[in-house]
Amino acid sequence: MSGLSRRGVLGLAGAGVAAVGIGAAAGVLASGEPAPAPRGPDPSAPVPFRGQHQAGIITPAQDRMHFVAFDVTTRDRGALVELLREWTAAAERMTAGREAAEGGAVGGSRQAPPADTGEALDLPASALTLTIGFGPSLFDDRFGLADRRPEALVDLPHFRGDDLDAKRGGGDICVQACANDPQVAVHAIRNLARIGFGKVAVRWSQLGFGRTSSTSTAQATPRNLFGFKDGTNNLKAEDPAALAEHVWVTEGPRWMVGGTYLVARRIRMHIEIWDRTSLAEQEDIVGRAKGSGAPLGQTAEFDPVDLHVRGAGGVPLIPDDSHIRLASAESLGGARILRRGYNFTDGSDGLGHLDAGLFFVCFNRDSRKQFIPMQQALSAHDRMMEYLEHTGSGHFACPPGLAEGRFWGDDLFG
Amino acid sequence: MSGLSRRGVLGLAGAGVAAVGIGAAAGVLASGEPAPAPRGPDPSAPVPFRGQHQAGIITPAQDRMHFVAFDVTTRDRGALVELLREWTAAAERMTAGREAAEGGAVGGSRQAPPADTGEALDLPASALTLTIGFGPSLFDDRFGLADRRPEALVDLPHFRGDDLDAKRGGGDICVQACANDPQVAVHAIRNLARIGFGKVAVRWSQLGFGRTSSTSTAQATPRNLFGFKDGTNNLKAEDPAALAEHVWVTEGPRWMVGGTYLVARRIRMHIEIWDRTSLAEQEDIVGRAKGSGAPLGQTAEFDPVDLHVRGAGGVPLIPDDSHIRLASAESLGGARILRRGYNFTDGSDGLGHLDAGLFFVCFNRDSRKQFIPMQQALSAHDRMMEYLEHTGSGHFACPPGLAEGRFWGDDLFG
Repeated sequence: MSGLSRRGVLGLAGAGVAAVGIGAAAGVLASGEPAPAPRGPDPSAPVPFRGQHQAGIITPAQDRMHFVAFDVTTRDRGALVELLREWTAAAERMTAGREAAEGGAVGGSRQAPPADTGEALDLPASALTLTIGFGPSLFDDRFGLADRRPEALVDLPHFRGDDLDAKRGGGDICVQACANDPQVAVHAIRNLARIGFGKVAVRWSQLGFGRTSSTSTAQATPRNLFGFKDGTNNLKAEDPAALAEHVWVTEGPRWMVGGTYLVARRIRMHIEIWDRTSLAEQEDIVGRAKGSGAPLGQTAEFDPVDLHVRGAGGVPLIPDDSHIRLASAESLGGARILRRGYNFTDGSDGLGHLDAGLFFVCFNRDSRKQFIPMQQALSAHDRMMEYLEHTGSGHFACPPGLAEGRFWGDDLFG
Repeated sequence: MSGLSRRGVLGLAGAGVAAVGIGAAAGVLASGEPAPAPRGPDPSAPVPFRGQHQAGIITPAQDRMHFVAFDVTTRDRGALVELLREWTAAAERMTAGREAAEGGAVGGSRQAPPADTGEALDLPASALTLTIGFGPSLFDDRFGLADRRPEALVDLPHFRGDDLDAKRGGGDICVQACANDPQVAVHAIRNLARIGFGKVAVRWSQLGFGRTSSTSTAQATPRNLFGFKDGTNNLKAEDPAALAEHVWVTEGPRWMVGGTYLVARRIRMHIEIWDRTSLAEQEDIVGRAKGSGAPLGQTAEFDPVDLHVRGAGGVPLIPDDSHIRLASAESLGGARILRRGYNFTDGSDGLGHLDAGLFFVCFNRDSRKQFIPMQQALSAHDRMMEYLEHTGSGHFACPPGLAEGRFWGDDLFG
């Protein structure tokens, strides 16, 4: 039994996809049209854990996400630092497709609890990334971090229409797990929670079943639960100049230089009401054609958005209260964000409907200048807001990536 | 735009897996050992909707599930029958990889709500199956069905330790959607709910992120959130004699002959407590080795279970209160069930833990003789019960498959 390891065994879903390389995914459809661009790297392969920036930000968005926010329950600063060191080791192992700790699920003493929970034993790395962030509440008086709090890590303001559930927001520390196999993402969060037993408690968590954003030009644009392609104009990994301008922190405390700020919003979508609106109205609300994803007035998805084009009677083809106009850099003084959202479905709402929507995650260099003014514009004017309800919210400072030998938070606590 | 159809376009996750045939998945690992058996058919291909039995029962278990239970809100029998007819047409289309209705998301009038919600526009069929069942409550006095209720469709008894949430159980009609892409499964349920607007309301729904059962010998055995291989001795599609004995109904009302009874149980697993028990205790509770899945006393997963083998001092190697002993056909007078469960994670429990577990689904010929006595034995004696909490429950009569021209429920209502 001790010979079993996640490195050595491929199985289940992993076996199905492991053999798919870039070439295998390319092809020509029966219609004679070329198939969409291949997805990029092998979806079962590992993503490097260490580097200049944390993985899971500009990494090509994996198919599934499990996001968790923890409350720190210990009051012992040293214990928290030790936990971050342990977490770093476990995260590095798991993102490489290994078990959470030496010995793993079955290789240790039979008389002791196993060092890994085992449900990912047969699964490959599945492009798992684990991305950590620190919330405003961590910088209170418990750990002596008050003077380390970045000015940009503000408490998010109330946005018009917010209906936030305190049990789905906030948290001292967040970890975003993304992977192409949900079992791998859930396993990672669960093992981090286990390692943190007695020091942290799960405050809230969210499973995203399908990605709604592309973060690489190699990825096709997915659809959200309104049926529209989402995030066509997202920042992409292949545009380092734009990332430097809009994502990576250069100011503030030293421990954040090279990092970025994560905003999470659980957005319930009232899909049943949306589904009763006409196609024309839906397209006017979004500002794009539902089929192709082309901006209104254009013909293809990636045609540049022209906010000035007018139709009959001089009416703007992209309405003044449409989503893409209000969210555009042109309307926001150049502000852009890196989106990394996921569709969710959490049972029913008790009123005869699915509880479904978008778990919105974005990264930006300064939420005060990017996400917040964007959300203020959207919450005040976006016609789509009639169909949305923001039910969860979080703001976290994600430090830069780790060089060899470093661990999560050592610059913050050091 | 009207040229766009789900048949004509492959994209997103679908493009990645569409090219993987049986051959592509086979291989030899770096360790020199042969790779596990390939997964079987192309995971993006359609599964036939019509046949002797409903699809989604012995169909090789797809990776993801979205299960829904509806309350019928109309009191008009004719309206309900018409809905079942409409649902059948939509289900047949969607399982073929097409949109829910003619015109679809973008091909109809721009002044009308689209006939499909659109989020699966670019996705292949992904082996979608839609399986319908009728709950005990449908056979009350509303629709004149009281004398059509099968005797086997009992109200499930209270089992020791049940902690059922009424909002996660029951329902007049259930639909189980299984697919290899969760967006395809969610899309199907959402479109059925939409078609049923004003006639049915979503009572509860459950997303299963990863399968825990194999229903074909071509599939590797997956792991549940206790980290163990689950359902090694499951009934399999390749054993029609066993299916005839344990799954397919031959008695009772004519409309159920060729059908089967579905039992759903939402089983919260207290994984945090489980994770603190020793490997030896975990294996004693399950009755199998955690790594290989072999029955205790044997060496390989599929070695026959020997309940009589004893170790030092004459103690049974498979303890009297172990899960596999209590659930075995040998202990239950030959009773077996077809399992089709999925792992779930639904946020947190508000007490610092993940709300995670197993969404147990099984099919059997007569729950009174199979599932119920099995669950009575388990709930009374299984040591694993210390770590489990049954929080949702449903019992449904799934009619046989449909011949051409037939629709869901026409024999029941006819």
